[in-house]
Amino acid sequence: MTVDDTTPLLTVPVSLGDRSYDIFIGSGLLAEAGERLAGLAPGGRAMVVTDETVAERHLPALMAALESAKVPAEAFVVPAGEATKSFAELERLVDAVLTARLERGDTIVALGGGVVGDLAGFAAGIVRRGMAFVQIPTTLLAQVDSSVGGKTGINTAHGKNLVGVFHQPQFVLIDTDLLATLPPRHLKAGYAEVVKYGLIDDPVFFGWLEANAPAVFAGGPALAEAIAASCRAKARVVAADEREAGNRALLNLGHTFGHALEAAVGYGGDLVHGEAVAIGMAMAFRLSTLLGFCPAEDAVRVERHLHAVGLLADLTEVPATARDPARLLALMAQDKKVQRGALTLILTRGIGRSFIAHDVAADVIADFLEDETAR
Amino acid sequence: MTVDDTTPLLTVPVSLGDRSYDIFIGSGLLAEAGERLAGLAPGGRAMVVTDETVAERHLPALMAALESAKVPAEAFVVPAGEATKSFAELERLVDAVLTARLERGDTIVALGGGVVGDLAGFAAGIVRRGMAFVQIPTTLLAQVDSSVGGKTGINTAHGKNLVGVFHQPQFVLIDTDLLATLPPRHLKAGYAEVVKYGLIDDPVFFGWLEANAPAVFAGGPALAEAIAASCRAKARVVAADEREAGNRALLNLGHTFGHALEAAVGYGGDLVHGEAVAIGMAMAFRLSTLLGFCPAEDAVRVERHLHAVGLLADLTEVPATARDPARLLALMAQDKKVQRGALTLILTRGIGRSFIAHDVAADVIADFLEDETAR
Repeated sequence: MTVDDTTPLLTVPVSLGDRSYDIFIGSGLLAEAGERLAGLAPGGRAMVVTDETVAERHLPALMAALESAKVPAEAFVVPAGEATKSFAELERLVDAVLTARLERGDTIVALGGGVVGDLAGFAAGIVRRGMAFVQIPTTLLAQVDSSVGGKTGINTAHGKNLVGVFHQPQFVLIDTDLLATLPPRHLKAGYAEVVKYGLIDDPVFFGWLEANAPAVFAGGPALAEAIAASCRAKARVVAADEREAGNRALLNLGHTFGHALEAAVGYGGDLVHGEAVAIGMAMAFRLSTLLGFCPAEDAVRVERHLHAVGLLADLTEVPATARDPARLLALMAQDKKVQRGALTLILTRGIGRSFIAHDVAADVIADFLEDETAR
Repeated sequence: MTVDDTTPLLTVPVSLGDRSYDIFIGSGLLAEAGERLAGLAPGGRAMVVTDETVAERHLPALMAALESAKVPAEAFVVPAGEATKSFAELERLVDAVLTARLERGDTIVALGGGVVGDLAGFAAGIVRRGMAFVQIPTTLLAQVDSSVGGKTGINTAHGKNLVGVFHQPQFVLIDTDLLATLPPRHLKAGYAEVVKYGLIDDPVFFGWLEANAPAVFAGGPALAEAIAASCRAKARVVAADEREAGNRALLNLGHTFGHALEAAVGYGGDLVHGEAVAIGMAMAFRLSTLLGFCPAEDAVRVERHLHAVGLLADLTEVPATARDPARLLALMAQDKKVQRGALTLILTRGIGRSFIAHDVAADVIADFLEDETAR
């Protein structure tokens, strides 16, 4: 893909009282990272956390930017992949930060996708009970989702993201140029989360995406605008409910099914997060139709758009071994959004009309999963 | 010691907006723990975290109280001692909580001293990004200090409490009866933190302690009143500055010297925390006198009271191997209250007139430490 140099700088504020911050979106922003960091904490130092893949592509440019702004910095490189979100890697990173004698006002910078952001943010949240933190997301998924909102965490044998903290960054820097080196599969997977914002509460944005998906995938201003719209949507939800006491759960549209699918396939397996979420969203729409909440044509429209951009939308499209209804239900029940044993799901009354459904009976879901595998 | 049955129930509110909670202080409160917990989270479950020593003394009573209030609970017992505040024990506890499938609204209960409270609170702060948490401190030190204010954490090879989160409990239950089984040495060490509140900003309380120390050590209403006064003092400071951006640092009076002494002696060694803090407070007063801030007679009065109750107040009273000035200074510099390389210390203009001194020159401290070892 090519990125148009005329992409303007877009700024999306995240309003969280004394934890408010800005998301900067545009082309060429990585080169400005040093100056922005120096402005944030004059005299401060930085530790850049990144993974092996991203380090090869973008670390030299970031370190050069920090050096030219006279921000003393070192890099900490973790293995690429979901397995890095572990207690062992967290402890290793925390030790590196303490060995470098970084102080509270010094900054941990996450340069990478969701794995790097979640791990680095968690470390920033717990070293000295909270250090400064900056996100420079390098995947579309991280740019529109995980880098915004302050959720950090690691995985355990019991499931994904079951351990972590809320820790807001000082700013998020989204350089759209970085997506030029992203494999097409991952660009597509991240796009699933972009679609999600339309499906939650913005039917106009969903319609815009149906009309403009090719332009978005081509890069340039349409891509930057899609990212900004997604960040604005997420910032709005997060500002209203930072710690997920209520409507923030809407952001989980497609995620309870999606997480179960990811776990069933095996992390790092045949289904990346966004792909699983795409199927999960389509399933949430079909279940909503089955329960009489959602017009059938809306569920079809969602499926059609996901398929149009090359995403999966069907449970029958995942490996057969990962489709066992009983196993999927058990995995859904371990999701952290469970309260008092009852399943909470995000359902919908149509495109842009999602809602939180508490107490969805397990046998209803079991029957639905049976239907889905026989589709 | 004996505890008077007529000790009234004292309630100290901690005002922290939507994280506000109460501290209940009195005799026989452990028996009420189940009812209070059931009232907090109807239908919820609990995991009690305690250490081997406390488990033997008080765990059966707490489990019985939970059972009679129909709160399903299990216990997780850690080894006693500072070494338990480690990544390894944290991971083990987190795994136990997830294995028990506790949900966000279920409660982790810390039954023990500072080690148990810090570890259990940290786990409560990170499992599912924050679970309900209750403190039942069993040492005087924990009752007047570590159980109040939401600081949690573990130690690393780099120092104490360098990793953790702020996580406020739903309530703190201080049963003064539990102190009856506390070894006198630990009661005395905890008393150092009681004295601290007088020294920070309450000369009347310090005078009251000088007059009433024997009654406090005898237990009964004077002990409960000293605990309540300490909790009120700490609650006031924490409410004004939850995350230690400013005056909360006053609570570190005696602690920068104290932490260095503890580290020099070796944790679990010849100096327990309160004992080290007592020496550290006396040192802070002497340094303040040396620098012309504090009348010499106030420093002498502090020393005299600490000695009167059997606490140490002199650097020459610690093992010779732990007195090396250069090593102590290096240990102080690794303290997490260091900012931009300059040392921040709590100094004082007299009893009840402590203040935060930024930019204390390292060579001034080095000279002072030399003087102290030659006293």
